[in-house]
Amino acid sequence: MLYYPQPISDLIDGFMRLPGIGPKTAQRLAFHVLSMNEDDVIGIAKALVNAKRHLHYCSQCCNITDVDPCRICRDPSRNRQLLCVVQDAKDVVAMEKTREYTGLYHVLQGAISPIEGIGPDKIRITELLRRLQTPEAQEIKEIILATNPNIEGEATAMYISRLLKPTGIKITRIAHGLPVGGDLEYADEVTLSKALEGRREL
Amino acid sequence: MLYYPQPISDLIDGFMRLPGIGPKTAQRLAFHVLSMNEDDVIGIAKALVNAKRHLHYCSQCCNITDVDPCRICRDPSRNRQLLCVVQDAKDVVAMEKTREYTGLYHVLQGAISPIEGIGPDKIRITELLRRLQTPEAQEIKEIILATNPNIEGEATAMYISRLLKPTGIKITRIAHGLPVGGDLEYADEVTLSKALEGRREL
Repeated sequence: MLYYPQPISDLIDGFMRLPGIGPKTAQRLAFHVLSMNEDDVIGIAKALVNAKRHLHYCSQCCNITDVDPCRICRDPSRNRQLLCVVQDAKDVVAMEKTREYTGLYHVLQGAISPIEGIGPDKIRITELLRRLQTPEAQEIKEIILATNPNIEGEATAMYISRLLKPTGIKITRIAHGLPVGGDLEYADEVTLSKALEGRREL
Repeated sequence: MLYYPQPISDLIDGFMRLPGIGPKTAQRLAFHVLSMNEDDVIGIAKALVNAKRHLHYCSQCCNITDVDPCRICRDPSRNRQLLCVVQDAKDVVAMEKTREYTGLYHVLQGAISPIEGIGPDKIRITELLRRLQTPEAQEIKEIILATNPNIEGEATAMYISRLLKPTGIKITRIAHGLPVGGDLEYADEVTLSKALEGRREL
């Protein structure tokens, strides 16, 4: 960006390092920053550095946390008989928002994807196996596989379910079906046949 | 954001203060920051604070700059007989990219918009008038009004042209017409009639 004063082109370059932000958006954001008050800008700058410095992965569940073990793992009110395996930290938040699940989590930090060269060793499956051998894990009665309902997520769920079969722990997979508020007419065939397959008596 | 560790919800809040960034995008950006290397993150944080601290408006042309007068105003190779009036700093960059214009600029920092309550006193018109009274401005032979080709921009151009009429300086407005690479079929009527109106002999 030859045409801007150095501080602003530095900022534009900075924004462009973030995903989904191209030159036009970066420029718009940079100019907005100039119109913000200085305290707010310093606030964002601090939040950036703090997030990077003070966050790491929970030694038990591999979720992102600022304390170790994380708030969920150390919460005595959680049901320690349930373990929900999800792909990433955002999925934990999605599950928590349901307010239905009170068990523990294990965050894989990805899914198996041969196309992208992500094998089982690249995600936190070893950590899961190691965790299941600890004395605290002896309480676990059910492992819920809540990886994404796509090819990678299914493959990962399949892989883990086979791997954990010898442990004798009950392994379940979250249900496939029609999204609530969705329309039968617009559902794709695969979802609809999964919804049929998973029908339950009322 | 109750479900995240404090440093990450602070960062999500920070991103959400930027325009066009909602909770989902903010979350995605925040998680991306966690995966970046620390130097890059510190780089962005510094760029934010620097942009805010080291930038101000040029005392001559009201453009955003880190030195005063700005690099364009102080450049001896610029044609001081031409003054181009634009709405904001991004427009200066757009003009510079054409490599056709070598004159000076005046940045209004907005356009007259009665709907949004922006009157002529809210934009840098007074600064333009004051500038035209300085000895350096006596060289100016032509003022090109390059505000946006929309209602606000047109109104602003009209207003300024009337205001400057008594100075006797030649006032011009950038041409309306079909965009290069555009298609006649898809041009709106107003643009097309402007293009007709502005036709030139070959």
